[in-house]
Formats: sequence, C-alpha cells, structure tokens
Amino acid sequence: MNTFAVRAFGTEAPEANLEQLNIDRREVTAKDVEIDILYCGVCHSDLHTARNEWHGTVYPNVPGHEIVGRITKVGNDVSKFKVGDLAAVGCMVDSCRDCEYCRDGLEQYCEEGNIQTYNGADKHLNKQTFGGYSERIVVDQDFVLRMPENLDLAAAAPLLCAGVTTWSPLKHWNVGPGQKVGIVGIGGLGHMGVKLAKAMGAEVVVITTSPSKVEDAKRLGADEVILSTDKEQMIANNNTLHFILDCVSAEHDVNAYLRLLKTDGTLAIVGAPEHPLPIAAFSLIPGRKSFAGSTIGSIAETQEMLDFCGEHNIVSDIEIIKIQDINEAYERLLKGDIKYRFVIDMASLKD
Amino acid sequence: MNTFAVRAFGTEAPEANLEQLNIDRREVTAKDVEIDILYCGVCHSDLHTARNEWHGTVYPNVPGHEIVGRITKVGNDVSKFKVGDLAAVGCMVDSCRDCEYCRDGLEQYCEEGNIQTYNGADKHLNKQTFGGYSERIVVDQDFVLRMPENLDLAAAAPLLCAGVTTWSPLKHWNVGPGQKVGIVGIGGLGHMGVKLAKAMGAEVVVITTSPSKVEDAKRLGADEVILSTDKEQMIANNNTLHFILDCVSAEHDVNAYLRLLKTDGTLAIVGAPEHPLPIAAFSLIPGRKSFAGSTIGSIAETQEMLDFCGEHNIVSDIEIIKIQDINEAYERLLKGDIKYRFVIDMASLKD
Repeated sequence: MNTFAVRAFGTEAPEANLEQLNIDRREVTAKDVEIDILYCGVCHSDLHTARNEWHGTVYPNVPGHEIVGRITKVGNDVSKFKVGDLAAVGCMVDSCRDCEYCRDGLEQYCEEGNIQTYNGADKHLNKQTFGGYSERIVVDQDFVLRMPENLDLAAAAPLLCAGVTTWSPLKHWNVGPGQKVGIVGIGGLGHMGVKLAKAMGAEVVVITTSPSKVEDAKRLGADEVILSTDKEQMIANNNTLHFILDCVSAEHDVNAYLRLLKTDGTLAIVGAPEHPLPIAAFSLIPGRKSFAGSTIGSIAETQEMLDFCGEHNIVSDIEIIKIQDINEAYERLLKGDIKYRFVIDMASLKD
Repeated sequence: MNTFAVRAFGTEAPEANLEQLNIDRREVTAKDVEIDILYCGVCHSDLHTARNEWHGTVYPNVPGHEIVGRITKVGNDVSKFKVGDLAAVGCMVDSCRDCEYCRDGLEQYCEEGNIQTYNGADKHLNKQTFGGYSERIVVDQDFVLRMPENLDLAAAAPLLCAGVTTWSPLKHWNVGPGQKVGIVGIGGLGHMGVKLAKAMGAEVVVITTSPSKVEDAKRLGADEVILSTDKEQMIANNNTLHFILDCVSAEHDVNAYLRLLKTDGTLAIVGAPEHPLPIAAFSLIPGRKSFAGSTIGSIAETQEMLDFCGEHNIVSDIEIIKIQDINEAYERLLKGDIKYRFVIDMASLKD
C-alpha cells in the first residue's frame, strides 16, 4: 500500500514529552478522504493514552480525536465529500460494519470494538492508528463528518468528542422540554452538557462542589446551580431531576446524586473513575432509578449533533495553543487549569 | 369509628416469638371490603419487620402481605366486588392518590410513600396497619385485587408479593419473545421470575452459585443454567443477555453479572443487600448498560399479573404450614430451607 510521510506530534514512551516526529499515512483508497487538519482539540484521553495510563499504548503514539479540517483529496468512489469541503473526524475511524450494533448504526458499541482514531488497530497499514496531532489524516468517508460552515472551526473541534459524548446520552435518555436535567462536573465534557441540554429545551441544573463555578455555570446556560457540599441544598432538591449526566472522573458519592432523581430517573456516567463506585440498593429500588454508563456516540449521532450545533450556534469554550505548547497544556489539564478545552492550531506544526 | 376484634398472630417485641393476639379492624366504610383470609404467604420482609431489622417497627406487629380470601362484607359504595367473591391484597392498602405517581397508576412510588399492608400508617385508626396473619382484613376496594377462579388459592398467595415484584420489572423493561433474560438467585422471588419470564416468551437463563439448583431451575422452566462459580461458563456468556433480574439479597459482585448483558441491557435488583454494591464504571460505559432497582408493583400491574397467571396457570412452589408453625418457618427461611415459599393455611388460626 502506498504511503506518504506527514509531520506529527507524538511520544515514544510513557514518560517522554510529546515532540515532533514523522508518521506515514496511506494514499487515499477508493472510499477514503484526505483531510488537511486545521484544528485538533485536546481530550484527557489523549494524555491517558500518551502516558499509557490505560495500558496497551503502542509507541510511537500520536493522540488527537477532535479533528477539524479541509478535504484535500478524495478516492474514486467517494460520494459524500469533495475536495475543498470542511470535514471532521472524531473518536473512531472504522468498525467491523457487520455486527448487530454496526448494522444498527451504533458503531461505538461494535462487537469487535470500534477502531479508535489513535492507538487503534489500523486495518490498512497493520499498525496502530495515529491521531489528529498531525498535518493530515486519511479516513474512510463513512467515518468522516460534515462541518457546518457557520461555526468557529477551532471552537467546534471539541464537539467531536466532548460534544458527542454528552449529546449521545442526552438524546438516548430523551432529554427535552419539560424536563429538569442535572449536570455534574463542569469541565471539558460537563460544560458541553450544559450548553447542549439547555439548547435541547431542558431546564438545566448544574451540581458542583465548587462555589467558584456557580457564576460560570450560569453563564454557560444553567438555570440553577446546586452546591453539592451544602447538605440542605441537596436535600431540598431530592426527587426533582428527570436525568443526570455525570461527567466526573474522580471518585465521588453517586448515591448523593441518585437521591436528586425523580422516580424512573437515570444517572448516566461518561467519566470513568478508577475504582468501583459503591451504590446502595436503596438508592435505586424505591424510585426504580437507574445508574448507567455511556461512551462517545455513533457516526449518525455525531453528524446530528454537529448539525444541531450549527443551527444553535453552539461551540466549546476554548483556549487555542500551538502544538509546541502541548506538554505544558497537559500539565495544566491535570490541574484543571482550563476553561474548558485546549485546541491546537495545527498551522503551528508547519512552523 | 366502629371496630371489631379479630384473632391474629403477631409479635410484641423484636426478640419475641410470634403468638396469638387480638387486633381491631374497622367496620367497612363506604368503599371498603372485608375479606375472610384463607391463605397468607410468608415473605422475608415479614421476618425483617417482625424483628425490627429495618428499624421503625411499631409493636404489636402483625405481618403478612400475600393475602388471599373471600369477601364477607362490602361498603355501600363498593362497585368492584360483591360478597362471596374471591379477592386478594398485596403489599399496599392505600396511598396519597394525589401525587403525580398515584395519578399515573404507580402507587408503589407514591411521593408520600404508599401505605403498606402491615406496619404502615393506618389512615382510619391512626395506628399501624396489621397484615394478613389474621382472620379478616378490611381494605379500600381500590387496593383489592380480583383472583382468577382457576388457580390453587394457597399456591397463588405468593403472587401478591413475590409474583408482582418480579413481574413489574420484567414488564417495565419489556421482556418478551426474542429476548434472552437472566434470573439471578433462585428463591421466593427468583423462582417466580423464572416462571413469569418464560411464560412471557423470553428465553430464560438462570445464573446460580449452587450446582444443587441446576435441575430445579430447569424444572421451573429455565432454558439454560449458568454456574456463576465457573469462570469459563461466565466468560462464554458475556454480552448475551438482554435483561437480568437480580433477586439476591446477600452481598454479591454485580459487575460479574453486568458483563453478561448485551449493549443497552439492564440489570435490575429487587433484593436489597445491606451494604452498597461496588460498581465499576467500565461495567456500564462500554455497553451503555444500566444497573437499576425496582420495588413491588402497582395495583394495575398486580391485577394484570394475576390475570396473566390465571391464563397461564402459574402459581408459586409452596409448602403449607399452620400459623402455629410460623416461628419455626422463620428459622427455616433464614437457612434457605424452603422451596420456595411458605404459605399459612389461615384456617389454623381458628384451631
């Protein structure tokens, strides 16, 4: 298979900094599109994978799965895109396409495991996939998204992971008008959850441990903010929420949030705390409540979310960085020192 | 309010045995029916309450909420029943009737708490309610069920709690043909779960720790039995079940069962282990799975279940006892020495 070299930023070992390196991309095959990457968001998963914190990282590793760019080449059988189109790539670049979930348009739950944009098993080159911290990427058209023309492209990049990861559970559990929806944890994911749930017509209640986030939560669109450290506020809000999106990756007492749900309510986690969370049977039984999980979103959902964000002019709150500042950005990410997403201006890779 | 005395069996203190005592019942008011109790099932909740293990027991306590009998008197405005009808009473005898859940026919989730058949707050006599270990009971017609004429009345008594407690989640999570449904814990509740899920058209998989229960599970209707102590069997069945009904009240590793669920599957617990259950985020997130709870069932669901059991000739597997043997039965219940439900022949109270 013919390949070509592109510049990228990646790491050779768990303890090493990210630095410039060259990687190979395949020449477009019949159904591929080649994208010149303009912006790439920085997700906490990038850091986890670069540092092998989830194990299984194959080096060199080039992270990045919030990719926005412009199409520079298309294969002979590509019907969905043409050269010059804006396009985007999220967390997946392929899946088995044959299992019941792929056939149902739920590629994120592919029985064989979807092929992740980085550190996945590249079907074409028989090595690990390389992500968006790079000049160009080549992806099958079925895993490429159309970008609305009206959005700020840099600020739209995080929609590809943070956006769809919150959109998918909000849609799946039918969040909409007439509902009161809680969002726990206002970071990269949570701040998108607030914006999306609000635009979907729900009354949005942010639940936070930080008095410092109250004002910002309201600015993002929250109708109400509950300080979870204030027991009286928590008790006053028992049995009031239809759905809770829990974006917290640190250990936390989920039972306290389950009490806020009405009968038949669901709390869905999208962050993944390291240790098991203790759930009391009596947090669930008396109100037929559910504690659920959700991961990213399907290709169809991602497109639906992008179109919705185009219509409602929703983007992420971001800080633009150069690729050369990525190691420092990772350190700030670990401290939560970002409101709310770093996005790399990939033009800097050409410097 | 006029009352009359009836013989009952109950206890005066957590450590005391149950023995015969007299209690007052109200004379039927306009919408009440009076039932001569023929049989009463013995639920583990009876024991928990008699011994104050859930705290809050008011003494004297007369347990029993799996009540079957014949109507001996009706109030002036009773339209649903007439003297001589078979009738039944389950876990609730009233609710607020005005909250959103009561208005939706979900009295079991009444915002004020439904009024339990025993140790509940009796609206009429301003004391605790007394259950079915008694000669007669007086209940508002809206909380009285019609009994199918064709069922063995003694064996049908446990339908009123064990039956509806398993029926309600099976119905709520849409169990039916084309689905593979797991039942964990084959006891009073679980054995009803197997019979009901099978009759609802599902393929039923019993998951048990006891090789001794394999044959019995098949006799009850299981299509397949997984020994949860056999790791290979468990792994071979990963991602195969649409729904799991978990009837285990002891501590157990729910994550092991969650792995058996397909994507979008739910595991619902109806037993209530004392301590919180540790749930790994990664047991839920990758397959959008839910860990849920459910309690008893509504009056409408209870009637629907009784009618279904009448059509399919489903009853509980029981051992009939005299009321004088109740203390010994409690000891055997604690040892799991019952297949699968004790039912008291209330004629013995007249001895």
